[in-house]
Amino acid sequence: MLKVEPRTLQGFFDYLPNQMILRQYVKDVWTKIFQKYGFGQLETPALEYADILSGKYGEEEKLIYQFKDRGDREVALRYDQTVPLARVIAQHASEIVFPFKRFEINRVWRADAARKGRKREFYQCDADIVGSKSSLADAEIVALLYEGFNALKLENHMIVINNRKIISGFIRYLNMPQEKEVEVFRSIDKLDKVGLFGVEQELKERGVQVSAISKILDYIKMEEKSPKDVLKEQKNMLKNSDEALEGIQELESVLEYFEMYEIPEKHYVIKPNLVRGLDYYTGIIFEVFSPSFGSAALAGGGRYDKLCGLFSGHDISAVGVAVGFEPLCIALEELGKGPDKGSGLKALVTVFSEEYLKNSVETVKFLRKNGIAAEIYLEKGEKLGKQFQYADRKGIPFAIVIGEDEVAKNGVMVKDMKKGEQKFCKKEELAKMLCTC
Amino acid sequence: MLKVEPRTLQGFFDYLPNQMILRQYVKDVWTKIFQKYGFGQLETPALEYADILSGKYGEEEKLIYQFKDRGDREVALRYDQTVPLARVIAQHASEIVFPFKRFEINRVWRADAARKGRKREFYQCDADIVGSKSSLADAEIVALLYEGFNALKLENHMIVINNRKIISGFIRYLNMPQEKEVEVFRSIDKLDKVGLFGVEQELKERGVQVSAISKILDYIKMEEKSPKDVLKEQKNMLKNSDEALEGIQELESVLEYFEMYEIPEKHYVIKPNLVRGLDYYTGIIFEVFSPSFGSAALAGGGRYDKLCGLFSGHDISAVGVAVGFEPLCIALEELGKGPDKGSGLKALVTVFSEEYLKNSVETVKFLRKNGIAAEIYLEKGEKLGKQFQYADRKGIPFAIVIGEDEVAKNGVMVKDMKKGEQKFCKKEELAKMLCTC
Repeated sequence: MLKVEPRTLQGFFDYLPNQMILRQYVKDVWTKIFQKYGFGQLETPALEYADILSGKYGEEEKLIYQFKDRGDREVALRYDQTVPLARVIAQHASEIVFPFKRFEINRVWRADAARKGRKREFYQCDADIVGSKSSLADAEIVALLYEGFNALKLENHMIVINNRKIISGFIRYLNMPQEKEVEVFRSIDKLDKVGLFGVEQELKERGVQVSAISKILDYIKMEEKSPKDVLKEQKNMLKNSDEALEGIQELESVLEYFEMYEIPEKHYVIKPNLVRGLDYYTGIIFEVFSPSFGSAALAGGGRYDKLCGLFSGHDISAVGVAVGFEPLCIALEELGKGPDKGSGLKALVTVFSEEYLKNSVETVKFLRKNGIAAEIYLEKGEKLGKQFQYADRKGIPFAIVIGEDEVAKNGVMVKDMKKGEQKFCKKEELAKMLCTC
Repeated sequence: MLKVEPRTLQGFFDYLPNQMILRQYVKDVWTKIFQKYGFGQLETPALEYADILSGKYGEEEKLIYQFKDRGDREVALRYDQTVPLARVIAQHASEIVFPFKRFEINRVWRADAARKGRKREFYQCDADIVGSKSSLADAEIVALLYEGFNALKLENHMIVINNRKIISGFIRYLNMPQEKEVEVFRSIDKLDKVGLFGVEQELKERGVQVSAISKILDYIKMEEKSPKDVLKEQKNMLKNSDEALEGIQELESVLEYFEMYEIPEKHYVIKPNLVRGLDYYTGIIFEVFSPSFGSAALAGGGRYDKLCGLFSGHDISAVGVAVGFEPLCIALEELGKGPDKGSGLKALVTVFSEEYLKNSVETVKFLRKNGIAAEIYLEKGEKLGKQFQYADRKGIPFAIVIGEDEVAKNGVMVKDMKKGEQKFCKKEELAKMLCTC
């Protein structure tokens, strides 16, 4: 057979066991939270009929992995988890009870421009409530995020909130030619990048009237105020816009719920310039940041009333969140906030000699029975030194030795691989000792 | 936009939340067991360069989903988890400590002939020890299976064992023309389907000599004996075959380990006619059955000394198991051995009126804090009857009501949706009550 070079496609990655620990931890934390909040898990196929996906992603559509299968069908690897969700809602309408609360943590594929580190295969981590217009649903999603980020020990995370109806209402209140509206949207969205002065300059260049610019600056400067003051001021400024008032009222409800859910005030702000893309969202929008990690959002979402009904023939209201699985893994890694080290492989049970092999088997069985992940050294007749070396290279924290002395004293010798110390331990105390180390 | 019919490709399935519970349970049980035995999780990409997979699956290669990506590369959806494992071993050789113990529970894709229920996308659930020739490694894999099937409450499962070296040695001992050897292999493999007499007939038809046939029948009839007696008899029969004796000795070691691991004798047999395909395996082979589920193996594996070195340029010994994830899910479903019902969504907290909403929020928070999955009714101003109906349709076992009376008495009303009964419960007793129901 011709020798083939072992290699992976650009943008596709192997995750070795030491990398999987963090990824699995992130998956487990969110799974547990989603389930606690009453979300059920959904899984849809990796491959869809291509026409299910086409026409749904605008410009990005060219990034879909599409091909003809062996039956000459046009098929495509799924690009996100939301369009398949919309398909499921229509296809299984009779089996689904609404509001449908579902989560999915799974892979999607995008043939994005190659760039170092850019992933063409990555995880999405979504939870959505489909079929409810209630602000309580909005609040539940935010409460879940608050709890999730705390569970991940990102305790100083910040939830940034806005409502698309307020922005639309505001832009219409400026009474500008329609073609300028989108430009204002875009300029507002850039505040964090270019600053107040930068936005002002850009608006001037785009030919926006000076009177409008001054209103826009007043509007986006509100961010510095407390959420309640922002809403009060907006209510005053936009009193003639029914759309804005509706959005303001939604956020007022949500803030009331935040109090009930005991989300501390220092964890959220209203940010009038939060836009989250031009289409898609129709009500509340939000993003989560960790100041220690910088400016990349670690989660984002909002209310969207059009997408879920794509295949159903009528609008279905939904609110949901996409946790940024990949950036979150990077953040936790960088901040050293991964899972407890103790959750992995805890002990290597060495084999002293053929004679004491059965004692080693007994010990590894005992550890596993007590829920401690342990392995036994597999090769026969190796010197202890080599067995320790194996534990060391594999990063196993403890090596256990059982020879004549230990058997006589009904215990084992435990070697702490990091400290290099070893001490005798009675068998009945072994599990406890390893658990607390 | 043109209306697209919501549909899935043949052989691809959506798993709704009620179906995912069992699937996630099976995943969790094996993940926990694999980790306890010191296996680390590996994840490889869904897409590989096509040449990584080609030439590895013989005839079945035509079932690979292969296509040209947007960069004109020949790519393929992975067909199993073992060839990618071989690639990983060569590609990450410097990062891996051997023996490398890895598990992976993930999706693979096969463009198999369409047939009702046949899946083109399905899960594989594999654990392998790569880089050890030790029989202790063989025994660890079997011990892990024994524990896993017990954990799944398939307590009367049966592990069927053989060793490829014994079969090869036996066939060579028959001293037949080489082209007949494969036919004998095939006939032996059919014992379970056609019975002893059927095998005899088939061997005659294939022109195998009468003296050889009688030996073959003696050989496969040994199955009825105890494992130790089988080995004793084989040792006697095949004393001139070094290959067979090596296989026998390996099984002797494994049986000794079984005693140390306390795998009860009623859980395993040696089956001299177990073949598991013509290529691939080189030492011990095994399958696991559940008599209550019938003749389909729920797991199978063995030692294979060629495959893992495919990309490394030298042989690497390995032993592993593939748990049949999909048949196992079917078996557990049919036998009613799924996860405890209590592990899912436990309670719907109803909203009595706007006035008591904050008490409902408080209650749902309290339940979640105590690790109980619960949801709150999201729509405003619905009658209790309609809220109960929602709980009922969603299969939520308990509905909780908090109104004036309950608040006054510092408790809640708990309605058992199945029995239709409701009773008052003090708040501090609520978590305990729901947990034990």
